[in-house]
Amino acid sequence: MQRNDNRTPDQLRPITLVPDIAPHATGSVLIGFGNTRVICAATIEPNVPNWMKQQGVKGGWLTAEYSMLPYSTLDRKSRDISKGRIDGRTVEIQRLIGRSLRAIIDLQKLGQNTLWIDCDVLQADGGTRTASITGAYLAARLAVQKLIDAKKLAENPLLDSVAAVSVGIHEGKELLDLNYLEDKDAEVDFNVVMTGKGQFVEVQGTGEEATFSNDQLQGLLVLAQKGLKDLAAQQTAFLTKQLLGTVKIG
Amino acid sequence: MQRNDNRTPDQLRPITLVPDIAPHATGSVLIGFGNTRVICAATIEPNVPNWMKQQGVKGGWLTAEYSMLPYSTLDRKSRDISKGRIDGRTVEIQRLIGRSLRAIIDLQKLGQNTLWIDCDVLQADGGTRTASITGAYLAARLAVQKLIDAKKLAENPLLDSVAAVSVGIHEGKELLDLNYLEDKDAEVDFNVVMTGKGQFVEVQGTGEEATFSNDQLQGLLVLAQKGLKDLAAQQTAFLTKQLLGTVKIG
Amino acid sequence: MQRNDNRTPDQLRPITLVPDIAPHATGSVLIGFGNTRVICAATIEPNVPNWMKQQGVKGGWLTAEYSMLPYSTLDRKSRDISKGRIDGRTVEIQRLIGRSLRAIIDLQKLGQNTLWIDCDVLQADGGTRTASITGAYLAARLAVQKLIDAKKLAENPLLDSVAAVSVGIHEGKELLDLNYLEDKDAEVDFNVVMTGKGQFVEVQGTGEEATFSNDQLQGLLVLAQKGLKDLAAQQTAFLTKQLLGTVKIG
Amino acid sequence: MQRNDNRTPDQLRPITLVPDIAPHATGSVLIGFGNTRVICAATIEPNVPNWMKQQGVKGGWLTAEYSMLPYSTLDRKSRDISKGRIDGRTVEIQRLIGRSLRAIIDLQKLGQNTLWIDCDVLQADGGTRTASITGAYLAARLAVQKLIDAKKLAENPLLDSVAAVSVGIHEGKELLDLNYLEDKDAEVDFNVVMTGKGQFVEVQGTGEEATFSNDQLQGLLVLAQKGLKDLAAQQTAFLTKQLLGTVKIG
Amino acid sequence: MQRNDNRTPDQLRPITLVPDIAPHATGSVLIGFGNTRVICAATIEPNVPNWMKQQGVKGGWLTAEYSMLPYSTLDRKSRDISKGRIDGRTVEIQRLIGRSLRAIIDLQKLGQNTLWIDCDVLQADGGTRTASITGAYLAARLAVQKLIDAKKLAENPLLDSVAAVSVGIHEGKELLDLNYLEDKDAEVDFNVVMTGKGQFVEVQGTGEEATFSNDQLQGLLVLAQKGLKDLAAQQTAFLTKQLLGTVKIG
Amino acid sequence: MQRNDNRTPDQLRPITLVPDIAPHATGSVLIGFGNTRVICAATIEPNVPNWMKQQGVKGGWLTAEYSMLPYSTLDRKSRDISKGRIDGRTVEIQRLIGRSLRAIIDLQKLGQNTLWIDCDVLQADGGTRTASITGAYLAARLAVQKLIDAKKLAENPLLDSVAAVSVGIHEGKELLDLNYLEDKDAEVDFNVVMTGKGQFVEVQGTGEEATFSNDQLQGLLVLAQKGLKDLAAQQTAFLTKQLLGTVKIG
Repeated sequence: MQRNDNRTPDQLRPITLVPDIAPHATGSVLIGFGNTRVICAATIEPNVPNWMKQQGVKGGWLTAEYSMLPYSTLDRKSRDISKGRIDGRTVEIQRLIGRSLRAIIDLQKLGQNTLWIDCDVLQADGGTRTASITGAYLAARLAVQKLIDAKKLAENPLLDSVAAVSVGIHEGKELLDLNYLEDKDAEVDFNVVMTGKGQFVEVQGTGEEATFSNDQLQGLLVLAQKGLKDLAAQQTAFLTKQLLGTVKIG
Repeated sequence: MQRNDNRTPDQLRPITLVPDIAPHATGSVLIGFGNTRVICAATIEPNVPNWMKQQGVKGGWLTAEYSMLPYSTLDRKSRDISKGRIDGRTVEIQRLIGRSLRAIIDLQKLGQNTLWIDCDVLQADGGTRTASITGAYLAARLAVQKLIDAKKLAENPLLDSVAAVSVGIHEGKELLDLNYLEDKDAEVDFNVVMTGKGQFVEVQGTGEEATFSNDQLQGLLVLAQKGLKDLAAQQTAFLTKQLLGTVKIG
Repeated sequence: MQRNDNRTPDQLRPITLVPDIAPHATGSVLIGFGNTRVICAATIEPNVPNWMKQQGVKGGWLTAEYSMLPYSTLDRKSRDISKGRIDGRTVEIQRLIGRSLRAIIDLQKLGQNTLWIDCDVLQADGGTRTASITGAYLAARLAVQKLIDAKKLAENPLLDSVAAVSVGIHEGKELLDLNYLEDKDAEVDFNVVMTGKGQFVEVQGTGEEATFSNDQLQGLLVLAQKGLKDLAAQQTAFLTKQLLGTVKIG
Repeated sequence: MQRNDNRTPDQLRPITLVPDIAPHATGSVLIGFGNTRVICAATIEPNVPNWMKQQGVKGGWLTAEYSMLPYSTLDRKSRDISKGRIDGRTVEIQRLIGRSLRAIIDLQKLGQNTLWIDCDVLQADGGTRTASITGAYLAARLAVQKLIDAKKLAENPLLDSVAAVSVGIHEGKELLDLNYLEDKDAEVDFNVVMTGKGQFVEVQGTGEEATFSNDQLQGLLVLAQKGLKDLAAQQTAFLTKQLLGTVKIG
Repeated sequence: MQRNDNRTPDQLRPITLVPDIAPHATGSVLIGFGNTRVICAATIEPNVPNWMKQQGVKGGWLTAEYSMLPYSTLDRKSRDISKGRIDGRTVEIQRLIGRSLRAIIDLQKLGQNTLWIDCDVLQADGGTRTASITGAYLAARLAVQKLIDAKKLAENPLLDSVAAVSVGIHEGKELLDLNYLEDKDAEVDFNVVMTGKGQFVEVQGTGEEATFSNDQLQGLLVLAQKGLKDLAAQQTAFLTKQLLGTVKIG
Repeated sequence: MQRNDNRTPDQLRPITLVPDIAPHATGSVLIGFGNTRVICAATIEPNVPNWMKQQGVKGGWLTAEYSMLPYSTLDRKSRDISKGRIDGRTVEIQRLIGRSLRAIIDLQKLGQNTLWIDCDVLQADGGTRTASITGAYLAARLAVQKLIDAKKLAENPLLDSVAAVSVGIHEGKELLDLNYLEDKDAEVDFNVVMTGKGQFVEVQGTGEEATFSNDQLQGLLVLAQKGLKDLAAQQTAFLTKQLLGTVKIG
């Protein structure tokens, strides 16, 4: 079987990575999952949220924001501020990105700082949330290195790497890394987040006005794990090159 | 091993059901999962959203709203309107409730109507979203029957029943239907939504600033399926009694 | 003359009272004025508003919020947060509830606490604001007793009881405690708030796109006082039973 | 007994009236109750609210807006838009102004028009809402005449005049038309709205963290009626002069 | 050539000035540029913005707000709060007023105070922003004198006077001080702000869906400077009279 | 004299241009003025604003939105939606961009379409508004060509090119194209917008808590015109290359 972009069912789209796309961020990367392209930036702020101060929680914080640039979609998408509110889908995605990154960071080692993760979609073709998480880790890792090099952090607070991929059932077939045309008609849609060491961080699967059996669930989990192993390897290769092989990944 | 409320790890909390708690709704129920109590109401409105009219989509719609009453928590929770916005957690939950119900309804059979599902938490002790989904189905089924009896619907648009339960890992043990004390310290937290016929609608699992292995994932899925079979049976028993055994469930 | 629910012009609807409807509140009651049913909850919060701190005002505060649950009316009512604002009627009602309770409480005796009064209408059939005030006093009294029993308050800050009732002119006749059908067509509509000792707290009377004479005003005031005496007696009876007769009412 | 501005207890402050203060309005007046000064403008708009169109209600509409200019108070008051919301007091007042004017207008005779009543307080010294109602009637009457003269209205839709005054109990004494210093410390505060023919439109009385007896209520109503008779006479005199005695008042 | 109001191209409209229009402001004036009339008020507040405190900036602050009263235009204009936001034009104007006044004030000499400038348009006939700036200076100067007289300021922080005027090209002709009919069809529209000593504070020129040459630009600048010299003289004359010639202007 | 980046006073920063940065936009470019980098996108939408429909205005519309990405500044800048409002500076800039483009477009030739101009700052180092206008023209020109090639437009509605540059006085010297360090301390700051044919579109000059003489104004205008001639030449060169020399520029 061929997919609409000639991939096999268990094949990722080509991953592209441009480091330092936003030089004023502490770390940044432009990640591409095929035609889906997301600016991922990590910025350190010497402050923590008020609730941490009030509750006396020690250490730092990590928070994520996700947004689609108005020209990222084929029909122009209004800015959130024009509508006066963030839509429900955006809220879900930015909460997911935040949880995924917090699962692999030791906030105690961040000091009294907030690490802001910003993911702005430049071009949307399915999988913007999984590309965001995968790129956000890289931006965070680059930011951490810059802070270590500048003696602003004593050690790397990132305990592992993290990446995400979508799997789904489209026209009855189990597919890895769905593009927009596949995604919009998928009967079942999963997003799976996993660390470089192979631990799950998040499993989210939804029947889109449909349901799925236990067998289908198991098949999709296997497919996702295959894709995530590949993504983790590509993350390591990128960071090894960027950081000159002199630092330990993750 | 005993839990803090003397349940075994695979034991649900007692389910309580009070029909017709809000007589002006088309159908309503007060559902209790132990001390968690939620007013679930289904209300028919002879109208559909503007986007359906603009896009020429046929049939009806179902939308859900979830809210915690200010006195449902041990520390008073501000109303959404006082804060001027719905928080991210609420958005996620009401989207989940909506998707869960839409997975089992044939919207074509609703006519040009919207079925509003409202879930207002009266007392929160963990599992408010799973109790909401489980009760929302019952409210919807009672509403449908009233509409059929009043000749406002020709046939039952509900194709199956639906229920939800939480499972999680707490102090290293896999538990069914976590209460608040268990939930707030759980390492892993899953919400699983399933139909009466045993099909999955949604699987959402998160490591709370932690991760989980494939073996743990599999154990939790088995536990959830056990609890969901039990919940489906209790839903059937309740509806059989309410609807006098004269109508087909689901 | 018979009214549409067979009452005489000067007859209250049956009052129903369910204590402890919201167990996480400090005190709560589900009050019914006929088919009008309101959840009234009183919750203590160990804090006072910022303006009191800034102005150095001593003692505590009492504030009220009122809301109609979306399924309380025959046509579903949108939540305030969906409309993005509280409507004018709601603002007026919650200010009235707050003033009515503050008229009978010695805020100095509350300590540095805020007593939140929440009134959520479960079913609306006219008189939701008068039922709210009448029930709010009961919730507050139950909350105060719980705080005294827990040694969190030294003495009862409530100096008197308070209740409210509507009177109006409908088809030229003066009626007590109007239900929805009577209220929506009334020519004149009064809400009167009075303490258990017979002092007025608030008198609000409006000609609804109409006017009224001094004689009509006097007739309505007499009718309201009759109803309020009855309500005060029912409040006392309820509290005597709930508090086991061991505490002084008011 | 002398009051702080040397009036007797039953004496109004001097009324000042400047016609046509805002020439682009259909009708306008600057009204003064002593140092309280309010710009009252009536503007016709050839349109009715959407709810009237949707419900098929015939005739016109009248709506009122009230605002305090930031420099009207001794300490500068933030604009509503700076705070992002209209405060509760403002909402109550503009609803009161609207109801008061609607009580004396035959909306059928307005045609498919909205009569906007705007009251902007230029200087606040107590009684801004009663001055607003009293001046709003005059602005409306001037606007009506201009529309009749321009053949845009066939006949006068105003069935009567309307005015308002405050009465209250301050240091135990019953006073008419309270200024700011009296109002802020008053134990009981009433606003009474009455037509030129002596019919009540609205009676609103509140114990300010206090209560009042039936005798006090009766005394205040007598005092208010005396002041309202005087205000109606002054309204008539002003309009007679402005409209050259050629038209019937009210 | 005659203009629609019989002025020559380089002639200002008549300036009218009513002092103390809002007695609760520290200083105020009602300024008229022909039929354009603006209430300008300056109010002192013993506080500075939070950003000044946080950044440790010394001295005071000056901030301006501009608003059009709903009845200032021939078609009623909705209040900002009704639309929920300040429109872009208003934002631009109030920022311009603020910058213009800050250019001539020594904020160090204001002490830890904010001088609020409020400009509310009572009647709009073109040039509301230039009338606002010209009147705002006068209100500020009156306010400063009151504060000096009350020993609340040691010396005059105003280093110069400031005024503003519009110039533009209408039907190919260069005109000074455009009224509404001229302004709405102008091809080029300039607002020029200048001090009494003849220094520019702001030059803003726009081709309204058109462009302009360097020659046209130069002609308009000459015309503006002529009008601004005249305005400065009228400001001085007014202040000399108001302040009894006993104080130094600017 | 050397500037902090070694430029002469009348020297532009290097201009960089990356076409098609956002492939889902109709036309797009990443423009750099030195380290200032802005994503400029032009997107066609087959619709016009409601006010045009209501007023029966023919032709199309052009509207611009400007935003700074949170990581574009050295200290992270909150998103507008997080603050709930667009700040005044952003409003001014997006209105300026819109006016500048509308000055050179024949809206009649756009058909019933809106051309959206989006400018998102990726890196801010002074001159973000002038880079935005300069790049927005290029994005619009690329979009127009794509629409002509796709037979969606019959002819080019752009009548001329447009570009913008800043000039200012810093430490007493007149400088062209200020970078951030120069801009933040400048005494006088001008933005000048000009067409390729040398006509002014907009001149905006402000003394930043300072003033400027007529001589300084004239010197700055000369400097701006020099820079704008250079920018226009670079725009032509870029478009000639992108559009293969087969189409007429402007």
